[in-house]
Amino acid sequence: MMTPRREHDFLGEKEIPKDVYYGIQTLRAIENFHITGIPLKVEPLFVQSLGYVKKAAAMANADLGALKKDIADYIVKASDRVISGEFNDQFITDLIQGGAGTSVNMNANEVIANVALEMMGKEKGDYEHCHPNNHVNCSQSTNDAYPTAFRIALINKLTLYKESLRALAEAFETKGGEFNQVLKMGRTQLQDAVPMSMGDEFRAFATTIREELARVEESKKLIAEINMGATAIGTGVNAPEGYADLVVKHLRAVTGLDLILATDLIEATNDTGAYVQLSGVLKRTAVKISKICNDLRLLSSGPRCGLNEINLPPMQPGSSIMPGKVNPVIPEVVNQTAFYVIGADLTLTLAAEAGQLQLNVMEPVIAFSLFTSITYMTNACNTLREKCVTGITANADRTREMVMQSIGIVTQLNPIIGYEKSAAIAREALETGKSVHDIAVKEKKLVTQEKWDEIFTFENMIRPKFINS
Amino acid sequence: MMTPRREHDFLGEKEIPKDVYYGIQTLRAIENFHITGIPLKVEPLFVQSLGYVKKAAAMANADLGALKKDIADYIVKASDRVISGEFNDQFITDLIQGGAGTSVNMNANEVIANVALEMMGKEKGDYEHCHPNNHVNCSQSTNDAYPTAFRIALINKLTLYKESLRALAEAFETKGGEFNQVLKMGRTQLQDAVPMSMGDEFRAFATTIREELARVEESKKLIAEINMGATAIGTGVNAPEGYADLVVKHLRAVTGLDLILATDLIEATNDTGAYVQLSGVLKRTAVKISKICNDLRLLSSGPRCGLNEINLPPMQPGSSIMPGKVNPVIPEVVNQTAFYVIGADLTLTLAAEAGQLQLNVMEPVIAFSLFTSITYMTNACNTLREKCVTGITANADRTREMVMQSIGIVTQLNPIIGYEKSAAIAREALETGKSVHDIAVKEKKLVTQEKWDEIFTFENMIRPKFINS
Amino acid sequence: MMTPRREHDFLGEKEIPKDVYYGIQTLRAIENFHITGIPLKVEPLFVQSLGYVKKAAAMANADLGALKKDIADYIVKASDRVISGEFNDQFITDLIQGGAGTSVNMNANEVIANVALEMMGKEKGDYEHCHPNNHVNCSQSTNDAYPTAFRIALINKLTLYKESLRALAEAFETKGGEFNQVLKMGRTQLQDAVPMSMGDEFRAFATTIREELARVEESKKLIAEINMGATAIGTGVNAPEGYADLVVKHLRAVTGLDLILATDLIEATNDTGAYVQLSGVLKRTAVKISKICNDLRLLSSGPRCGLNEINLPPMQPGSSIMPGKVNPVIPEVVNQTAFYVIGADLTLTLAAEAGQLQLNVMEPVIAFSLFTSITYMTNACNTLREKCVTGITANADRTREMVMQSIGIVTQLNPIIGYEKSAAIAREALETGKSVHDIAVKEKKLVTQEKWDEIFTFENMIRPKFINS
Amino acid sequence: MMTPRREHDFLGEKEIPKDVYYGIQTLRAIENFHITGIPLKVEPLFVQSLGYVKKAAAMANADLGALKKDIADYIVKASDRVISGEFNDQFITDLIQGGAGTSVNMNANEVIANVALEMMGKEKGDYEHCHPNNHVNCSQSTNDAYPTAFRIALINKLTLYKESLRALAEAFETKGGEFNQVLKMGRTQLQDAVPMSMGDEFRAFATTIREELARVEESKKLIAEINMGATAIGTGVNAPEGYADLVVKHLRAVTGLDLILATDLIEATNDTGAYVQLSGVLKRTAVKISKICNDLRLLSSGPRCGLNEINLPPMQPGSSIMPGKVNPVIPEVVNQTAFYVIGADLTLTLAAEAGQLQLNVMEPVIAFSLFTSITYMTNACNTLREKCVTGITANADRTREMVMQSIGIVTQLNPIIGYEKSAAIAREALETGKSVHDIAVKEKKLVTQEKWDEIFTFENMIRPKFINS
Repeated sequence: MMTPRREHDFLGEKEIPKDVYYGIQTLRAIENFHITGIPLKVEPLFVQSLGYVKKAAAMANADLGALKKDIADYIVKASDRVISGEFNDQFITDLIQGGAGTSVNMNANEVIANVALEMMGKEKGDYEHCHPNNHVNCSQSTNDAYPTAFRIALINKLTLYKESLRALAEAFETKGGEFNQVLKMGRTQLQDAVPMSMGDEFRAFATTIREELARVEESKKLIAEINMGATAIGTGVNAPEGYADLVVKHLRAVTGLDLILATDLIEATNDTGAYVQLSGVLKRTAVKISKICNDLRLLSSGPRCGLNEINLPPMQPGSSIMPGKVNPVIPEVVNQTAFYVIGADLTLTLAAEAGQLQLNVMEPVIAFSLFTSITYMTNACNTLREKCVTGITANADRTREMVMQSIGIVTQLNPIIGYEKSAAIAREALETGKSVHDIAVKEKKLVTQEKWDEIFTFENMIRPKFINS
Repeated sequence: MMTPRREHDFLGEKEIPKDVYYGIQTLRAIENFHITGIPLKVEPLFVQSLGYVKKAAAMANADLGALKKDIADYIVKASDRVISGEFNDQFITDLIQGGAGTSVNMNANEVIANVALEMMGKEKGDYEHCHPNNHVNCSQSTNDAYPTAFRIALINKLTLYKESLRALAEAFETKGGEFNQVLKMGRTQLQDAVPMSMGDEFRAFATTIREELARVEESKKLIAEINMGATAIGTGVNAPEGYADLVVKHLRAVTGLDLILATDLIEATNDTGAYVQLSGVLKRTAVKISKICNDLRLLSSGPRCGLNEINLPPMQPGSSIMPGKVNPVIPEVVNQTAFYVIGADLTLTLAAEAGQLQLNVMEPVIAFSLFTSITYMTNACNTLREKCVTGITANADRTREMVMQSIGIVTQLNPIIGYEKSAAIAREALETGKSVHDIAVKEKKLVTQEKWDEIFTFENMIRPKFINS
Repeated sequence: MMTPRREHDFLGEKEIPKDVYYGIQTLRAIENFHITGIPLKVEPLFVQSLGYVKKAAAMANADLGALKKDIADYIVKASDRVISGEFNDQFITDLIQGGAGTSVNMNANEVIANVALEMMGKEKGDYEHCHPNNHVNCSQSTNDAYPTAFRIALINKLTLYKESLRALAEAFETKGGEFNQVLKMGRTQLQDAVPMSMGDEFRAFATTIREELARVEESKKLIAEINMGATAIGTGVNAPEGYADLVVKHLRAVTGLDLILATDLIEATNDTGAYVQLSGVLKRTAVKISKICNDLRLLSSGPRCGLNEINLPPMQPGSSIMPGKVNPVIPEVVNQTAFYVIGADLTLTLAAEAGQLQLNVMEPVIAFSLFTSITYMTNACNTLREKCVTGITANADRTREMVMQSIGIVTQLNPIIGYEKSAAIAREALETGKSVHDIAVKEKKLVTQEKWDEIFTFENMIRPKFINS
Repeated sequence: MMTPRREHDFLGEKEIPKDVYYGIQTLRAIENFHITGIPLKVEPLFVQSLGYVKKAAAMANADLGALKKDIADYIVKASDRVISGEFNDQFITDLIQGGAGTSVNMNANEVIANVALEMMGKEKGDYEHCHPNNHVNCSQSTNDAYPTAFRIALINKLTLYKESLRALAEAFETKGGEFNQVLKMGRTQLQDAVPMSMGDEFRAFATTIREELARVEESKKLIAEINMGATAIGTGVNAPEGYADLVVKHLRAVTGLDLILATDLIEATNDTGAYVQLSGVLKRTAVKISKICNDLRLLSSGPRCGLNEINLPPMQPGSSIMPGKVNPVIPEVVNQTAFYVIGADLTLTLAAEAGQLQLNVMEPVIAFSLFTSITYMTNACNTLREKCVTGITANADRTREMVMQSIGIVTQLNPIIGYEKSAAIAREALETGKSVHDIAVKEKKLVTQEKWDEIFTFENMIRPKFINS
């Protein structure tokens, strides 16, 4: 075993394992915070974003003379290696911490300082040559560096998430095309209503998911507003003149993202509105997808004592005791994911409301909520598409038969015989078990067979024309 | 029009309409708070409870010499008239206010003072003889009087609520008895599982609701712990020695309730745990009843393209366009009530968390949440019972037929032929549309007809005995 | 007493009081639904919107020959009188009902039919000449008429709400101007951080509220997408060709709003995404305003044992027992309103998730949630502005004194003496009670008095320039 | 590399790595469910509980002849090794899955079957001799085995959790004792109220936490009600007569827990009420502890521009930019944990409401919510105690000084000079900056110095006696 090195901060001194790149403050964080056991490194995009921020800051600092060129260069190079993922394993702070992200920011500052030192040929911990606070964190505070890195990570995660949404919408659209000629009973309030095409039903799933893409994009715009240069509380204390604009320019270049500097840095430093908005949008999508999964489970209920309109692909035996039972396990897991996301939105809401004065100290749990929600939702959308939607088949004979034996088709007689006579037919059908056709055409002769045939074509059931008497 | 009287407090002077019993502080409250437009008087049990508190306090104050006997007597008499409901219309403060209930407490203090003055033959507002603060509020603070009155009101509301729960459970129990001989398919994950009696299904609804009675009762015990005598923050400042015990004794007598004095008055004055617990229990019941209503709507889906196992009593035409359509409107309104209650629980949770230091200033919105939740839930339970449950009928022929044509009954062959052979039968039935009986008995001869008949009796389907090969 | 008239529907017959304009189905609704006791008429904008919808539908029906010109004219005239508010008292259905809004739609259909009949010189209830379903509801279903009216009402309510937000933002902006020269300590994590101008603090409140205007506007756009012509489930059954576009054209004209016809009517008829989005935005604003109120309460804490940086206008005596105590009652009531709104968002979320198949039957509780939230938030914003913000004053001497005696100002020495030496000064100041100035300038002579004076000007504290050694 | 073995189920065949103990159904679960990436094995108590259930079932099956004695013996031995934790790494199903727990149950069945086979000297996968379904799962369904194992795990986790609560309460109690003689200003609504002992303030924290122990215990009782023997839906299909009572007896013996068989097995199999109740209690505790942490952060605000009544132990440098800043990071992380728990309660509530008919398929996300909430809360309580509470110190001089210079002490003059005169003194003090003593005793001579001294002793400020004029 190697001798550990010793590091100090203004609270004292600690031994650090020789070979690690993080330092005393990260070590304190690990000792202080062990709530979830989920370390920072599970979000590699976040680690990467910390690298971007430190790199851009070093570049701006060098431009403005706040850092010597050579130190800045080493910080840039070390940051690049962090960006590449090479040091992901050094980011070990628990995702939920106190300190408003200071531990995460210091974790990055320390790792980058020590990587830089190593590249300089110095010992790790020899911070005179490259100091976590004085150099790597130069012109920054946790209060601008942390949320900026967080936002960059979110934007990149959202790009992947949108892909999963788009693909899911397309899968439903494709199914809609397949089911165009499937006649089925539309239902409102779980009661038989009027006929429709199953193609339209599945296309509506595609429509409703596709709408989410625009909402996510709107949210991304809000997230792209960053407060670099605000430093501690938005006054920009300790940042050189012109730094804020310059660091954002560099950050746009290194990330390739349309980042924008907030106009009111005081507000931007304590505001968490963009997170609330984004979480609200995730929740909205979760609500929609949960509704769709509820529908898929309803429509596939059976096989013999349910609606049995569609078949989901069987993914696994459904029961340890009931042989042959197959369950809609994929929609079920997606429903549960949706419930998680709705709960996480509440956690985030509470955290946002708890902000006080010049900073919202609860930002780590906001990050935790958004990271897990986006990850889980992305996984859920992909799972739903791959393992369920693409394999759905329709029981077209059964659904057509249900329509023709239904009472709901009486609605289409309204314009001809009026609501009240239609209601009387419906009532008689319900009480006697007879068909609407028999009562309307044969018994009561309210409609001729000719007219009946004109009304109850497939086309006229799914896209009804107004047919008068 | 009568000349108004003038009243003052330490912020200034105001005109009060001559004929009203409330005074300047109530008037300020009305000017300051108009969020919901729902006045205190919609909760007559709360007005009554304020009367109880003021009466008991006056009695204790008289006993201990803190109030002169004759003034105390007038306060007691005036309180009795408030308790009777005679002055409900004078309680006009908006249910959601700032000030931690001070406006409500002062509304009561002022009304009682003026009623007392009138009974003394004095002018309203002539507070020298009976003062809202010095006399009616003697030995009290809002911080003990308000929550105590609130808790008494809750207990009395809960008694009515429990009645509605008990009656609902009984209605389900009765239905359970009616449906004892109805064989139906049990479903797990919306897929056909194994047979059961519809009687057992409805009895389970009764069981699950009946469990709530014990939970409500536990919560009532927590609510019954009051902090009278704590005055401002729990130190009992300005209350005479022995007052706390004495006022609780009187309050038990005048209300007839098992009220208990909290042991740690500092804690009791800022703690809202009992409300959180009660709200959690209301939420739990809402969750259960919502699940039941979901089931009722599922089971009555149809009439021809749904499960159609039961019929809910038709309450109103279901559609402005679809003749003869009848919807499960009663379960629907109950579901929505449940959603309200779950939302109100969140409001209350936020309010409870927002308490600071020696008081929770958010208690009015806690009161708003609990009052509306209990009222709505009571109404919902009564509505569900009267207008739905008691009129439910079963489609026994249809449900039996579904069972016998199902694949799920194969499960009962497991102990005889094993899980894998049963699964093979299930698969074949699913693929070919054949019945389990035909495959198992006729084709594969895995079970004799005799054994089959032994297994698939009604009794053995709903309370299966273990039948070995 | 007048003899009641008799009306029937397909479930039977009922007596209706002679003088009322509603009919049998409204009566059934009143009998069936009494959960909240809050009738439709408390939302006059909703009643008005029902009038708009019925008017535009009658116009489109007349254009297309689906209604005879003279009947349509009477419906238009009757609708105009409903729009004017003349019959608000006839809209008595409880805001939370089952039936997905059918009772509300029928309440409107019946009132308008009877008003029309009266104008024709016919008896109320003589529906042959103007029938609630066949004529007033012609080419409509509850499932398009109800949500369309709901959305129009929301848009008009949001216009008022935005006014209250804008005025509140302006009030904070004005205060920001007043407090420009007030130096105060900025705080992060409730700990002294670095100095700032109180003007910037209040302007940040304005900024953060002003951002909400754009969010509300985005949500309004989503709400403006309506599904008129969808009828029962989106297939447009029983509506004449061209009706959807035409009725939307008329509706735009009569309301003056930019309403847009949804492109996928199947989706639009079951989707509640726009409500979820709007509710999410209301929640976001509630979170922000709650945070602001928390800050106002913190900053005005005291008067002698708190921060005491600002004074809120005293609105009422704060205690029934503590003389002279004045509480921040207005922020308190606003906090509670915010909690209500967050809870109502959850109610709405649950309702949105519970939609099934071709319709979301829970829309009434969605309406209840949005109506109450918007009303309460509008009231809260106005109350906060009028009764609190405009009267706030600053204790400038005290806040300046706190800054100069603070340790936080040491941060501005970082660029000159480095983070570690600054930390040592901070530590010594904390331990000894000495001032940063004394330690840095006098004792340790790390900074000259000249440099000190250059750094600690008012301007340099609130908009710090980067000052190097 | 070893040749994989092949296993099949009724959906087909798959290759299984030779050395793993799980089988084809676990493999399908891994392929199907990858939402959270958090495997079952992070909850070793759950794995252990699955072992307990399988062991007790085997014992009961042997007793009743449903399993041959020797096979049962091997299952018992294999279960014991699972209970010991030896095979934790084989439990890899994602914590959130579809299928209502079937994958978890089958994961256990397969591991135990293969461990048993190995002990028999057979090949893994040679299920003829010990079959996951026919033998290990004998007389069970997922629908009783999974929730029973889940409940046993909960009970054991709650025992650890209660320990952390009890220790936290004790730490506050100890602090209360230390701070007995510290006089401080009590605050209501963040405004100065009346004096109190800091000892009482901290003891109230102990009291309020200690109350949670009884709530957790009540919830544990509900959790201890299990449905073993219910099998698929509560009818006990495929379980031998007497099995339910016997397996519970064995389960009590092997776990040492007071488990109780539910009386209505139909209800017990679909009901999730006990989870809702437990989660509500966790939420309540989270609310209380969050309030306490808010208080600790408020009371330690400063050091020079805040209340500065207490000092929290410094745990880490508080800022990457502000030297010497130390933040209340431990209360902060605990607040965030509380927000997580409140959000998880919502997730669970949604899942509970989504139960349908004879089963709640959402139980896995209920398990996820409760497991994470209990773990995080336990960690948070321990962290708060060890790293914060035990090291808190009081600034007694400062707090006493604040009391004596406050206006709030005027309250104690009420009984002597009346509310209105006291209010006048308060007003004058506020306006002039004078002390209450100077105005009351020196200027207005409303109270003698003697009386003043009698009133304002330490004892009389913290436990005020009623002192009359």
